[in-house]
Amino acid sequence: MYEFTAPFQDPSGSPIRELFKYLAEPGMISFAGGYPASDLFDVDGLRSAQKRAYRDSNRCLQYGPTDGLPELKSELVNLMARRGVTCGPGELLVTTGSQQGLDLLLRVLVAPGDVVLTEQPAYPATLQALKLQHARIVTAQVDGHGLDVDNLAALLESGAVPRPKLLYTVPTFANPTGATITRERRIALLKLAVKYRFVIVEDDPYGDLRFSGDTVPSILALTAEVEGSRDWVVHFASLSKIVAPGLRVGWSIAPAEITRRCVIAKQTVDLCSAPWTQAIAAEYLADGALERHLPRITTMYRRKYDALCNELRWQLDDAIQFHQPEGGMFVWARIEGIDSSELLWHAIENKVIFVPGKAFFADKLDAASLRLSFAAPGVEEIQEGARRLKRAYEAALAAGTSSVQSSGS
Amino acid sequence: MYEFTAPFQDPSGSPIRELFKYLAEPGMISFAGGYPASDLFDVDGLRSAQKRAYRDSNRCLQYGPTDGLPELKSELVNLMARRGVTCGPGELLVTTGSQQGLDLLLRVLVAPGDVVLTEQPAYPATLQALKLQHARIVTAQVDGHGLDVDNLAALLESGAVPRPKLLYTVPTFANPTGATITRERRIALLKLAVKYRFVIVEDDPYGDLRFSGDTVPSILALTAEVEGSRDWVVHFASLSKIVAPGLRVGWSIAPAEITRRCVIAKQTVDLCSAPWTQAIAAEYLADGALERHLPRITTMYRRKYDALCNELRWQLDDAIQFHQPEGGMFVWARIEGIDSSELLWHAIENKVIFVPGKAFFADKLDAASLRLSFAAPGVEEIQEGARRLKRAYEAALAAGTSSVQSSGS
Repeated sequence: MYEFTAPFQDPSGSPIRELFKYLAEPGMISFAGGYPASDLFDVDGLRSAQKRAYRDSNRCLQYGPTDGLPELKSELVNLMARRGVTCGPGELLVTTGSQQGLDLLLRVLVAPGDVVLTEQPAYPATLQALKLQHARIVTAQVDGHGLDVDNLAALLESGAVPRPKLLYTVPTFANPTGATITRERRIALLKLAVKYRFVIVEDDPYGDLRFSGDTVPSILALTAEVEGSRDWVVHFASLSKIVAPGLRVGWSIAPAEITRRCVIAKQTVDLCSAPWTQAIAAEYLADGALERHLPRITTMYRRKYDALCNELRWQLDDAIQFHQPEGGMFVWARIEGIDSSELLWHAIENKVIFVPGKAFFADKLDAASLRLSFAAPGVEEIQEGARRLKRAYEAALAAGTSSVQSSGS
Repeated sequence: MYEFTAPFQDPSGSPIRELFKYLAEPGMISFAGGYPASDLFDVDGLRSAQKRAYRDSNRCLQYGPTDGLPELKSELVNLMARRGVTCGPGELLVTTGSQQGLDLLLRVLVAPGDVVLTEQPAYPATLQALKLQHARIVTAQVDGHGLDVDNLAALLESGAVPRPKLLYTVPTFANPTGATITRERRIALLKLAVKYRFVIVEDDPYGDLRFSGDTVPSILALTAEVEGSRDWVVHFASLSKIVAPGLRVGWSIAPAEITRRCVIAKQTVDLCSAPWTQAIAAEYLADGALERHLPRITTMYRRKYDALCNELRWQLDDAIQFHQPEGGMFVWARIEGIDSSELLWHAIENKVIFVPGKAFFADKLDAASLRLSFAAPGVEEIQEGARRLKRAYEAALAAGTSSVQSSGS
C-alpha cells in the first residue's frame, strides 16, 4: 500500500534486538545484551550532578546549541586531553550516543555505492547504518590483534580491494571480538589512510574499560606520529558504557570541515540532543566523578570476565576457543562443530541467551562463532549461565542438527 | 579534500540559526526565535517530576526501548485521547523532538526525486530535511485560513501539480504564518489524500497554544469522518512548546506499518531517545501537571500577542498588514514596499531582530514578508521592540534601498 524506500521495503530489525523478547522470560540469564551493568551505575553521583545541573534550570529546559552545551564540550575536551588527544571545540560535536555520530557522518560523506571497509565480524548497527546509506560494504580480515593491516595493505596495493571512502573500526576491545589493534598496526593503518586518502572511523566506546595489560593510545592520539594523518581520522566516543546510556551522550571529534557539515545535518535531524542530560553529564564530569567511579566498573568487569572464562573452560574445556580480551564487555568464542544459531535454541530452552555469530557478518559467516557479554549479569549468574551453556551444547550435539553450515560456503 | 555528498558540498545552515549571533548582543530584543518563553517553564513541576522519575534510577540510566518508554507511551496515548484521537502503542513512536520524527519518516518513505508538497511559506527545517532526502519540493498556496485546498484539488485534477507522495502541513497556528486550516478544508484535504493516495504529514507542535476562538480538531482526529483516511495521515506532536524543549520529547502517530519501519530506522540512527528525560516527561504528564500549567502559558501568550499587535498597529499603522492568529507563537506580517532582508539590517542597528520572509520560501519569495515571534520576550520588551521596528522602517525608507525585489522576479 505504501511505497517504502529500498532499505525499508522488506526491513529487518537489529538481530540483537530480536532476541529481546526472550530476556523478559523469568530466570533467563543473558550474555546477549550490549548493556552495561545496571548495578554499577553511579546512582548517587548522577543524582547530585542532576541537582547541580538544575540550579540553572533554563539550561536544562530550553533548546541548546546544535553542537552541544558549551560547558559539556569543554569537559569533553578535557577528557580527551587526559586520553592524549588535543582538540578544539570546532572539532567536537555532541551527539545522541555515538550511534548518531556515525549516522550523521555517513549522511555527510557516503553517497550510494561508495565503498566502506569494515572489520569482519562487525557491530551490526554499523552494518545497518551503512545499508541505510546504500554504501557498498567491503569486509577486512581480523585476528586476535584486531584488523590485519598488512593483509589490507596488500589487498589495496593489488587493487583486490577498491580504494574505500571510509574504514570503520572498533580498535579497542572490539564489538564483537573483544580484540585490540596493536600500536604498530594503528600506525600502519594511519599511513595507509594518508596514502589512499580514506577516512578512518574510530569507534571507541570501550577504551576506558581496560582491566589488564597496557593502555594502547587511540588511533586519534597516534595521528601525532604520522604526518598528515589527523585529516583522515574521525573519532567517536560515548558516556554510555562508562557513565550511563540513559544520558544518550556521545561525541565525535573530526576535522572542522567535516564537523561543520555534521552540525548542519544535525540541525535537520533533531536540532539538538537533550540539553538536560547534557547538563547533567557536564556537572558529573566537572566534579571528577568519572575518574573516581571508573575503577569500580573495571574491577567488577574483571571479576565477571574471569568468572566467565574460568567457568567456560571448566565446563566446555577444549570444545570452546576464545581469545582473552584485556577489557571491554565481550568474549568472542567458537564452538567447533556447532552452528551457534542452532545452539541458541537449545540455550533458550536451558534459560541462557547469547548472540549467535551470524549477527556480525556482512558476508562469509563463521557459523561456529558467538558473542558472550559478561558486563550485565552478576558473577554467580555468569557461572550458572556457563553451566547452562554446557547443557545446551550437549543437547545440540544430541539433536545432531548442529553440524556447521557456513552460509558463505 | 573530502568528497561530501550532494547536499553537503556547499552546505548552508538554517537561516534562522544564522541570526543567533545577533541575539547575544546586549540589549537586543528578539522576535526571531522559535523558542518558547523561558520564564513560563514549570520549573517546580519538572523538578518534582524528575525526583519521582529517579526513584527508579535504572529506568533513567539504562538503554530504553527504541520506540519509547512504555509508561511515557501510555501517557501520550492518554494525551492524544484528550485531543480526540484514539491510537494504540504500535502506532506511536517517541522521538528526539518531532523534528526527528520527520527525518525518520522521510528516510522510510521518500526516495530521491519523489514529489513532496509543502505549504508556502513553510518551516525552514522541513525544507532542509526534504533537500537532505533529495525530494522534489512542490509548493502549495496558502491564505489566511491555511492551505488553499480547493486550489490544490484543481491543480491535482488538471495534472498541473504531480501526484505527491507526501504533503507536509502545520495546520494549526502554522510556522510561520500563524494560520489555522478550517475544519471544512481539513475534511476536503483528507478526501484528496484518499483519492490521490498520498500521506498527509500533520505537524502539530502548537495546537494546545490556543488563546482565542474555537478549537479545530486535528487532521488526525478528523480521519474518523472520512472513510479510509486514517491510513493516509502521519501526525507529529511534541512537548517542546508546551512543557520544555530541553526534554527533547516528541512523538509520531502513524499507521503501524509505517511506525514499524521508523522504529527500525531509529535503531540505526540513535538506538533510543534519552530515557531519563522520557521518564521525567512520563511523571510530569501522569501527575496532570500539563493541564494545570498550560493555561498559564496561553494566558501570557495572549497578553504578549495583544501587546505586539496593538503596538505594531499603533507604530506602523497601515504600513503593516497581518492576519490575527488565534494561538501559537507567530505573527506573519507584510510591510508593503520594503524588502524585509534589507529591513533586518536597520532593525539590528536599532537592536531588534526578526526573521525575514526569505527563510520560509522554497520558491517565489514574497520579499515584503517577515515572521515575528511573540513567545519569548516580555510584554514591555515587545512594546519597545515594536517601537524599534518603526525606527528601522523609517531608516529603511530613508536609505531608499528597500524597494521590494522579489527573488522570483
